[in-house]
Amino acid sequence: MARIVQKFGGTSVSDIDRIKSVALRVKAEVERGSEVVAVVSAMSGVTNKLVEYCSNVTNMSDAREYDTIVSTGEQVTSGLLSLALQELGIDARSWSGWQIPVITDGVHGKARILKINSESLVPLIKQGQVAVVAGFQGIGPDNRITTLGRGGSDTTAVALAAAINADRCDIFTDVEGIYTADPRIVPNAKKLNKITYEEILEMASLGAKVLQTRSVEMAMKHRLRVQVLSSFSDAPGTLVCDEDEIVEKELVSGIAYSHDEAKVTILGVEDQPGVAAGIFGPLADANINVDMIVQNASEDGTTDITFTTGRAELDRALKVVKDNMKIPYRSINSDRSVIKVSVIGVGMRSHAGVAQTMFTALADKNINIHIISTSEIKVSVLISESYKELALRALHTAYGLDSA
Amino acid sequence: MARIVQKFGGTSVSDIDRIKSVALRVKAEVERGSEVVAVVSAMSGVTNKLVEYCSNVTNMSDAREYDTIVSTGEQVTSGLLSLALQELGIDARSWSGWQIPVITDGVHGKARILKINSESLVPLIKQGQVAVVAGFQGIGPDNRITTLGRGGSDTTAVALAAAINADRCDIFTDVEGIYTADPRIVPNAKKLNKITYEEILEMASLGAKVLQTRSVEMAMKHRLRVQVLSSFSDAPGTLVCDEDEIVEKELVSGIAYSHDEAKVTILGVEDQPGVAAGIFGPLADANINVDMIVQNASEDGTTDITFTTGRAELDRALKVVKDNMKIPYRSINSDRSVIKVSVIGVGMRSHAGVAQTMFTALADKNINIHIISTSEIKVSVLISESYKELALRALHTAYGLDSA
Repeated sequence: MARIVQKFGGTSVSDIDRIKSVALRVKAEVERGSEVVAVVSAMSGVTNKLVEYCSNVTNMSDAREYDTIVSTGEQVTSGLLSLALQELGIDARSWSGWQIPVITDGVHGKARILKINSESLVPLIKQGQVAVVAGFQGIGPDNRITTLGRGGSDTTAVALAAAINADRCDIFTDVEGIYTADPRIVPNAKKLNKITYEEILEMASLGAKVLQTRSVEMAMKHRLRVQVLSSFSDAPGTLVCDEDEIVEKELVSGIAYSHDEAKVTILGVEDQPGVAAGIFGPLADANINVDMIVQNASEDGTTDITFTTGRAELDRALKVVKDNMKIPYRSINSDRSVIKVSVIGVGMRSHAGVAQTMFTALADKNINIHIISTSEIKVSVLISESYKELALRALHTAYGLDSA
Repeated sequence: MARIVQKFGGTSVSDIDRIKSVALRVKAEVERGSEVVAVVSAMSGVTNKLVEYCSNVTNMSDAREYDTIVSTGEQVTSGLLSLALQELGIDARSWSGWQIPVITDGVHGKARILKINSESLVPLIKQGQVAVVAGFQGIGPDNRITTLGRGGSDTTAVALAAAINADRCDIFTDVEGIYTADPRIVPNAKKLNKITYEEILEMASLGAKVLQTRSVEMAMKHRLRVQVLSSFSDAPGTLVCDEDEIVEKELVSGIAYSHDEAKVTILGVEDQPGVAAGIFGPLADANINVDMIVQNASEDGTTDITFTTGRAELDRALKVVKDNMKIPYRSINSDRSVIKVSVIGVGMRSHAGVAQTMFTALADKNINIHIISTSEIKVSVLISESYKELALRALHTAYGLDSA
């Protein structure tokens, strides 16, 4: 008998009708003979309203009270879905985080799950009762409700699935799965049947917001199979799994991009030992995240150094660099109209020439590459933002990802 | 140092502005040097909305899920009031029923409080922290949230006050206290400074809905002083207390009425042993509440029996009587346009003539008395509903209760 965790996000439970339709989906899984745990988010809009109440009361936020208040959204959904299941003749009950309990650390507002006690829950699901769990919440060492921060219900679902040794965790959302590229930009993007944990982590780090990074890491650690699928259709989703489970590996699984990028170039820096440390030390001290770094040696004894950071941090980064440059330099340029485009695939570990395909495809479209950076399963380039659509579509075609 | 429980009902915390104004009231009590526990209801409208969600999902109600859902209303208010107090520089934290815990029986939807564990709460209020408690809720033997039913937040406040040996429980509501008569009918009704538990229980049983009967009984049992006052004004309220604490006792504390009355008269019943049992036994079996009963002996060997019941139960009562009358009788009359008017006062225990004042006052206005019934601290009469205003005002004047 399969043991399945199903997670339903805010848009999947946005109102009473949607909750009833989710109940039908849970019922179908029960009728396939599975033991089912459903993890739910708050009805959409509810969390925002509760947060608004808080901010109308005070600017100082006591995260413990914030957690007490906003966690009620998921609690309400868990009760309502239980009622909807009972209405369909399915035995079901709600569980709050503190009832299971989902034990977290004491960092209210963005707590981490330490342990999930499955002793009270498992015997009941073995008897065929559906457990409807309020996501996004747990209980801290102070016996007070904690919340897990953004995407917390995904984390609840994956952690719970690991704790009860579930066979699979299904994440129901408003997209049908994971695509080879953003379908809004690349119209012939294909839905992937399977993708590895490593690949989806790279995609998430590039801003593809399908699954929360933390929950993917947790799934990878426990080798838990995670399926991403739509609660609005019956189409099969995308399975996130171990590399071994993917028989026909593609060289490249997807093309991702991140548009929250900005570039800084320091020109004519005197080339001496400690140059890089002198620039990036102060940036790190100022807690500014630096992504790509390139240094070009020149022939006149000076060098040009280029790095990227988040757009929101650009102004601060420029100030830190200017205030701390003890080494002579000629000038500093910056550019906030750049994006990072990446090709991702575990297949490239064993294949040469993946990067070359990328460079050729971009050159064919006269797209200039500012910076290149590579990792074991990813090649990223920084290009001008104006080429975004052109670059993504060209690469999608070049790697043979276009749907038939 | 005084230890005070303050309870704020739904209209007192109806929106964010009202919650902020309640915070000022709590702050004032803290600044008087008191240890303070605030018990809160849900913001008005919230509970109804949650109940509506439930009924939109299903007609079958699993009271356990219902409790999980509706109890969130008070949880939200407790968090928001804590934030509002912190904003004013007052140390405060929220407590849900399960956190204290407020231990109840397992009758979900109308649970009774069995025990309140004060060990976690009291040390913190001793340190000067305000405890903001979600009213209306507790935790049952199944480790699930229970709710206490209508008026439950009053019960929470009084039970908590008893458990922590509070000096007083202040019930903030939308009226300024308890009056000698309904001010909507008797314009010169006076607010009482003090009233005994017994008197307010009699008033409550007559439909004066200021305090829930259960919470008054609990306060009386623990000799807990309860103050009823308005959260919308700074006027002093009415203290519900022990008779000993009231130095200048009035003969009569108030005039109350109940308009949910109906009268049944069985005429010409053959006068033989067992007549009353033959009538009221079947009514009791049918779970019909009978209030006043009068039997007049006549000279021709027959008797007339009159009783009152609730208006909603009249038709059922008539059917039960007719179906079960084994003793010969002439006819049955009924009248649903009657009301019960009562004068209430612990002072009448030691004074004769209280009833006579009532009969004279009514006779002076040509008001016919259908039935009379007395208890130790109450005289009630049944009269035609059309005389309601006239009777209440005449009695209010006759007992010297009119404000100057």
